[in-house]
Amino acid sequence: MAQLPLTPGSTIGILGGGQLGRMLAEAASRLGFDVVVLERDADSPAGRVTKKTLVAPYDDPEALKALAGEASVVTFEFENVPASSVEVLAGLGVEVAPGPKALAVAQDRVAEKTFLNAEGVATVAFAAADSPETAVEAVAAIGTPCLMKTRREGYDGKGQQWIRRGDDAAEVFRALGGKPVIVEAPADFVRELSVIAARGRDGATAVYPLAENHHESGVLRRSIAPARVSVATADQAERIAAKVLAGLGYVGVIGIELFELADGTLLVNEIAPRVHNTGHWTQDGCEVDQFEQHIRAVAGWPLGPTAPIARVEMVNLLGEEVDAWPQYAGEPHTRLHLYGKREAKPGRKMAHINRVSPLG
Amino acid sequence: MAQLPLTPGSTIGILGGGQLGRMLAEAASRLGFDVVVLERDADSPAGRVTKKTLVAPYDDPEALKALAGEASVVTFEFENVPASSVEVLAGLGVEVAPGPKALAVAQDRVAEKTFLNAEGVATVAFAAADSPETAVEAVAAIGTPCLMKTRREGYDGKGQQWIRRGDDAAEVFRALGGKPVIVEAPADFVRELSVIAARGRDGATAVYPLAENHHESGVLRRSIAPARVSVATADQAERIAAKVLAGLGYVGVIGIELFELADGTLLVNEIAPRVHNTGHWTQDGCEVDQFEQHIRAVAGWPLGPTAPIARVEMVNLLGEEVDAWPQYAGEPHTRLHLYGKREAKPGRKMAHINRVSPLG
Repeated sequence: MAQLPLTPGSTIGILGGGQLGRMLAEAASRLGFDVVVLERDADSPAGRVTKKTLVAPYDDPEALKALAGEASVVTFEFENVPASSVEVLAGLGVEVAPGPKALAVAQDRVAEKTFLNAEGVATVAFAAADSPETAVEAVAAIGTPCLMKTRREGYDGKGQQWIRRGDDAAEVFRALGGKPVIVEAPADFVRELSVIAARGRDGATAVYPLAENHHESGVLRRSIAPARVSVATADQAERIAAKVLAGLGYVGVIGIELFELADGTLLVNEIAPRVHNTGHWTQDGCEVDQFEQHIRAVAGWPLGPTAPIARVEMVNLLGEEVDAWPQYAGEPHTRLHLYGKREAKPGRKMAHINRVSPLG
Repeated sequence: MAQLPLTPGSTIGILGGGQLGRMLAEAASRLGFDVVVLERDADSPAGRVTKKTLVAPYDDPEALKALAGEASVVTFEFENVPASSVEVLAGLGVEVAPGPKALAVAQDRVAEKTFLNAEGVATVAFAAADSPETAVEAVAAIGTPCLMKTRREGYDGKGQQWIRRGDDAAEVFRALGGKPVIVEAPADFVRELSVIAARGRDGATAVYPLAENHHESGVLRRSIAPARVSVATADQAERIAAKVLAGLGYVGVIGIELFELADGTLLVNEIAPRVHNTGHWTQDGCEVDQFEQHIRAVAGWPLGPTAPIARVEMVNLLGEEVDAWPQYAGEPHTRLHLYGKREAKPGRKMAHINRVSPLG
């Protein structure tokens, strides 16, 4: 197994070559690490800022073997890494972080909420179904309106549908592909928040201030951080993060999406076992951003500070919105983070900006 | 010629693959640019965080042609770029910044001081010599003690020698290789300062706060910034920077090393037409660091803000000092910047740390 803490000059492997992989690679580079990316696309955003890309599917045995030959520690930029890939890498003596439990929980919405509730973390009420008949039962149990989602592989609002009438349950089940689903009660929230937290290999944890998030059509539009919240809310979020991190035996940075209810209760919407879009503000709002924090954690280094040094409004630039870069480049306190994607498809995350202002 | 401002997704070429090239590449990457490095070493610090390295000497015509085929704008990390390379690139339609005048002045200590004095910028008294006989005359004109340096290619205290007695002039001239030299009067300074400044393609300038620098054996050991200076001193430095930038028709970031005399006068010691070791503090002390500022300037983007957001003590880690990284990794307000160099030769710049504290 890898000698930890990992010495600068060692190689870190990253599964996935998108913008999160790119920003992880930039952080790894600042700490003196080499990076190898495993990614289908030979010309990926992350691959262009790293030593080497292994061009293959994430479960390609030869590519995983090659990765294990180069990297002492492997991490990933997205939660749908095949469990089999993690097993193969572990079998080859590579430290993979975050670990299999985090992936298993994050890949299945029922496993996720079951885990959270077992740890004493509140979520909306939910029920599982895997047939038109059980879908009808699940909707009856939760009541309408409710939300039906595939248990696996949905993101950014895809693979889910609202159900207004119990009679629609079987039809929506089929429309979502006839796959196993979760039926969720609506969250009557006043605000969407998130907390980015980290746990090191020594079990130490670090929690960033909360971000307030605004979505459009299921996609994050902007985050404001540190969010204006009461001390009680901040404490509640910290307790949630601590339970999730400990319960998963987690190593790395995690994103936890929260619903704030009118009475101040926080429910967990979902967890993402990776650096998170709502944590991009830390690049210009904290001494150590979520990307360096993640690299520190998986490399077995001590975690860095999470106190804010500025207030940040993070705005995602989707599709052709990135063409407005000259305007943002001319705003003195707007920091640009462009991902180097070749094609600005509609809705595609192309870049983000962090508008920085003094704390207070 | 390149369309400016340079669009994200374009490629920037960098001559030189050391740590300055690496940190420039990281900054370019954040702004969505691809980077191609021209460098003799196939495994250089910059090459490992970029898309491609052209492995060749800096004046290799085929490599320069290949670079021109990929990059719209070319810059460099060190001042001893052959003038012929810049001409070849310019002939191939590539924008090279900083330009030939800055290189010519920075490559020749006599041309440098002559330029500075002509712009009304004070330096120590100096005289040129190119033979044992003229060396004796130059030392007689300047008086002893004085410093004899080769006109070209010295750095970090190499290629120079103190002269205590006029009788030694011819011998020292020969000991320095019998090449053209400059003889400089000593500067009776109380402090070494530096100013990092930038000029955009539109002629706009931006000046960072002064740094106070401490050298050991001719090599920078640490910088403290913003340096504690009077308003008059800061103004004086800004005027010097403005004259130098305008006089060179400069594009990019420049490092200007200063001697502060007891009466508050600033003399220019030397200028470096590139990002500078005494500007590394800006990575953690400013919203836009010197590396992004340089990329902005050469890409024809507007310059970013230079106001400090923190106080920084920058310390270079030389040779095996880098082995203390675990200690620094555990200091909460110490940011590490490691260069990924393979071998910790004695005195080699391996990394730097920025110790961050609140302004004030």
